[in-house]
Amino acid sequence: MRRFLLLVASLAALVPTAAAQPADPSAPYADAARLLTSAALADSAAFERLALFVDTFGHRLSGSDALEAAIDWALDEMRADGLEGVRGQPAMVPHWVRGTESATLVTPTGSWPLSMLGLGGSVGTPPRGIEAEVLVVTSFDDLTARAAEAPGRIVLFDVPFTTYGETVRYRVGGAISAARAGAVAALVRSVGTRSLDTPHTGTMRYAEGVPRIPSAAVTAEAAARMHRMQDRIADGAPRPVVRLVMGAETLPDRLSRNVVARITGRERPDERVVAGGHIDSWDVGQGAVDDGGGCVVVWEAVRLMHALGLRPRRTIEVVLWTNEENGTRGAAAYRDSLGDAAGGVQLAFESDSGVYAPVGFGLTAGAGGLDTFRAAVGPLLDGLLSESTLYPSGIEPGGGGADIAPLMRAGAPGMSLRTAAEPYFDVHHTDADTIDKLDPATFARAVAATAIVLYVAAEMPETLPRLRPDDAIDE
Amino acid sequence: MRRFLLLVASLAALVPTAAAQPADPSAPYADAARLLTSAALADSAAFERLALFVDTFGHRLSGSDALEAAIDWALDEMRADGLEGVRGQPAMVPHWVRGTESATLVTPTGSWPLSMLGLGGSVGTPPRGIEAEVLVVTSFDDLTARAAEAPGRIVLFDVPFTTYGETVRYRVGGAISAARAGAVAALVRSVGTRSLDTPHTGTMRYAEGVPRIPSAAVTAEAAARMHRMQDRIADGAPRPVVRLVMGAETLPDRLSRNVVARITGRERPDERVVAGGHIDSWDVGQGAVDDGGGCVVVWEAVRLMHALGLRPRRTIEVVLWTNEENGTRGAAAYRDSLGDAAGGVQLAFESDSGVYAPVGFGLTAGAGGLDTFRAAVGPLLDGLLSESTLYPSGIEPGGGGADIAPLMRAGAPGMSLRTAAEPYFDVHHTDADTIDKLDPATFARAVAATAIVLYVAAEMPETLPRLRPDDAIDE
Repeated sequence: MRRFLLLVASLAALVPTAAAQPADPSAPYADAARLLTSAALADSAAFERLALFVDTFGHRLSGSDALEAAIDWALDEMRADGLEGVRGQPAMVPHWVRGTESATLVTPTGSWPLSMLGLGGSVGTPPRGIEAEVLVVTSFDDLTARAAEAPGRIVLFDVPFTTYGETVRYRVGGAISAARAGAVAALVRSVGTRSLDTPHTGTMRYAEGVPRIPSAAVTAEAAARMHRMQDRIADGAPRPVVRLVMGAETLPDRLSRNVVARITGRERPDERVVAGGHIDSWDVGQGAVDDGGGCVVVWEAVRLMHALGLRPRRTIEVVLWTNEENGTRGAAAYRDSLGDAAGGVQLAFESDSGVYAPVGFGLTAGAGGLDTFRAAVGPLLDGLLSESTLYPSGIEPGGGGADIAPLMRAGAPGMSLRTAAEPYFDVHHTDADTIDKLDPATFARAVAATAIVLYVAAEMPETLPRLRPDDAIDE
Repeated sequence: MRRFLLLVASLAALVPTAAAQPADPSAPYADAARLLTSAALADSAAFERLALFVDTFGHRLSGSDALEAAIDWALDEMRADGLEGVRGQPAMVPHWVRGTESATLVTPTGSWPLSMLGLGGSVGTPPRGIEAEVLVVTSFDDLTARAAEAPGRIVLFDVPFTTYGETVRYRVGGAISAARAGAVAALVRSVGTRSLDTPHTGTMRYAEGVPRIPSAAVTAEAAARMHRMQDRIADGAPRPVVRLVMGAETLPDRLSRNVVARITGRERPDERVVAGGHIDSWDVGQGAVDDGGGCVVVWEAVRLMHALGLRPRRTIEVVLWTNEENGTRGAAAYRDSLGDAAGGVQLAFESDSGVYAPVGFGLTAGAGGLDTFRAAVGPLLDGLLSESTLYPSGIEPGGGGADIAPLMRAGAPGMSLRTAAEPYFDVHHTDADTIDKLDPATFARAVAATAIVLYVAAEMPETLPRLRPDDAIDE
């Protein structure tokens, strides 16, 4: 019933409004924007689709049955939505499995289980685990300074969160540095903000020629406790000892798929706007914030366009990329499928920062592109955006993301949804990444704002200016 | 070295200050208050003692070896501090053990482990667990209305936190109501505020003649997920199914002890101020907020008095009660040891709401007692108290606590430390109850403020007015 009503409403869009002001570059898109906004804010359908999605399939790590079942479901739903060219685009993805794991703080007065999560890609321990003294360091430099104390020990990087980029280096590269110093395992204080004894997983790396040692995240609380224990060694207290057991292993790659669908362009079907999020997640929580919401916000934006009968000048292609978290093989497969057309993509759009209240969009385009796009879109977003301490509101410089980076490297302008995501790193890669962290009303506003920018990008006569090879790309 | 300096400083207290104003009821205590404040704020010794305590012994449930080891340590430390009459006061305490436990949400697309904690006192399940459909209810009334749906099912009380008193009823009494309706187990949404998939344990009860069914807390996130699933049944979705496995059992009572020590009164040694916190905790986290901090704040207040050579008119007795969490047998043993003297206690003081930044003290005394005490103490707390949205700052009506309630029922005025404890119910009875949630600087201020109120209560010539049998007592 709802779709019928939307179709009737869409006919009104074809009647030019008397108030149209040709001097305003956003005027040609105003009617479509109004329709999209009304439809997006009419109910909580988008949020409910996300809830059904994550409640049904839960978390979806690459290689898991849950991921492939979720992909099958999304393909079926997109077909039912009436989107065109719905298909699964093959990509071989890594298949890392966590197995049974634990970390135990062994002290003279008792053994204390520590909340922990092995890091994605880590090797396991021997079946009975590794038990060793812990050396707590506060930076790579601190490890270098104390390298003589590392051999045979477990190195714990106790680095409080500053920015994600600054802090995540210890999760990604900690095992390499620790192994070079002779450590038998590497622990990292979870890369997150507020903690309620909350471990955060995520990817890590090994380096050629450096021993592959097991690596896991412990909570901020546990890292602080071991740090205090180390500080008491000078008073004669024993060094902390941890027993680490990890059943992690990497199985052969498995076939997965990007979910791809489109609205074919009215005038320039071979030109395209590409937009999406990633359908895989870490193997914890529901992957609702990272990045179920990013998938659904784009999907619903395009579904509304279709339901309203809005067919813009260019094709809009929705892509729910697979394997963003630990390989970006989906992004590579999608980019490869475009061949020489990758650099010609009108706009590559990604939502992967949590669909909290929408604040605006970051855009990286060639010279003049930002001004052109801001003039065409800015006024249409009135009433849809929130304020945040993280970003200025509106269309601002700086778009990007891991899944659109390959398109941007080929020259395509890149755009990303920005939200009031203050709590994002509280739940990122944790069991607390569940849909209750998001809000139906602000989610609906994010759908409306996303629909408007995608529509305008696909409808505008101008081709957005290409990036140059030396433009910085934020992945 | 530090104690020697404090002793020298304390001699200065004996020299009357020229500025003493006899009209100010707080004047007789001003020098002592200044000394106590200087000593408490001089360093972070109190906080470090708490850190050593909880890092060494961890959580300390009644019946555990950790609790008894912590009690031994506290007794030794108090003797080393030079406190008088240091002794362990016997009390037989319950011995409930959690055992191995898990809850799994079983769905057509997969089995999802749920973060959970069995409730203290619950029976276990059969070894292979209980698997049953879940009926989600939002209140006792809702359960009554849906009683026909309960038989053979697991009832989940999904009640969002309002106040602790209002919400905890479902944790304490949920199993009774669910069993009366024919349920095979009871789950409760964790009684807490902010959640990062955080389960909260706590005590629960059975009733005579009602079947004893297993009962556990799930997280707010899990409760919301099952609630959404139930809401989709009307659309043909399956009812949520949970497999609950709990190895909980109640072993024979075990001998524990209250930790008791004193500064003997200078003029009226048989009159006493009683003050403390509880040394036991739930079997999660470190029991740092609930209630290691409450123990140490009082202990350190009295230790400073002793170190400064301040011996007030009446005896001050420090009591670290055992078994507050699941029996209050320690409080009963202490009260019984006083016999008829219980009602004559000058002031019963308890800190059991988290030693966050001190806001003031709640006092329940007989007529006129609050005004007398406020006049004597108020000005001495200048600069030590914080503002909070929870309580007005200063000495205000309303003191109490589970461990001093027996003394208050006998007529003793009751007082409790109030703090800016907004995050208290984020961590209460969880693995996140760790010392990093507290702050050394505000902890030191709490020690100073507590030392001042205890000193004045013990030193003041007036006997605080007794409670009447019908006075309300906040436990």
